[in-house]
Amino acid sequence: MSLDTLARRFVELCNQGKNFDVMRTMYAPDIISVEGDGKETAGQGPVIKKSEDWGADKTFHGETVRGPFYNGATPDQFVVYFTLDVTPRATGRRITLEEVGVYTVNKNDQITREQFFYDGEH
Amino acid sequence: MSLDTLARRFVELCNQGKNFDVMRTMYAPDIISVEGDGKETAGQGPVIKKSEDWGADKTFHGETVRGPFYNGATPDQFVVYFTLDVTPRATGRRITLEEVGVYTVNKNDQITREQFFYDGEH
Repeated sequence: MSLDTLARRFVELCNQGKNFDVMRTMYAPDIISVEGDGKETAGQGPVIKKSEDWGADKTFHGETVRGPFYNGATPDQFVVYFTLDVTPRATGRRITLEEVGVYTVNKNDQITREQFFYDGEH
Repeated sequence: MSLDTLARRFVELCNQGKNFDVMRTMYAPDIISVEGDGKETAGQGPVIKKSEDWGADKTFHGETVRGPFYNGATPDQFVVYFTLDVTPRATGRRITLEEVGVYTVNKNDQITREQFFYDGEH
């Protein structure tokens, strides 16, 4: 599969709300996930758990994913821009979170690294 | 100046349409600019010229810049998401272009590298 085919599939599934399908089918067993504060989580299972925990204290109404975007200098990467529509239980106030994700893909069509850029706490 | 102060100023000026002010005042003399195809342009003057050339065959109606976004693992970088509203002369058809820019800043508050991610020709 080309990087482009994989990346478009990623965006399509995310826009259908199938983020956990993405994680289960496209993430390498040893994926590294880097949150905005720089903290790394290693391994497909722990990364899925991190997303489950993230969702546990909020209502997730949906998301929009723009991209994929590319740069020829880093041909094993694709980039997307997320807007996440959520209501944190703590505030009860519906908000839109924005973030950019940089994804690195290996030759076996597995995502080996994701790095999220955002502003403040997510 | 903190990275955050610089990055917010960058976004503010871009959203005011002052992209060339940004390039003249925030870019390092030896900045490297990397387009989506991976091609590098080196030097503040040539990078400004590249933007002038980019604008020469289209009408630029404006842009929206979202961000800045950050990741603690790469504390010298900020990321923005651009939507560019343009009409290429060749087609006369108004379109929206999207791209993500990754900016690297040195200790003298100068942008030393910009790398653009997008899909197709821009």
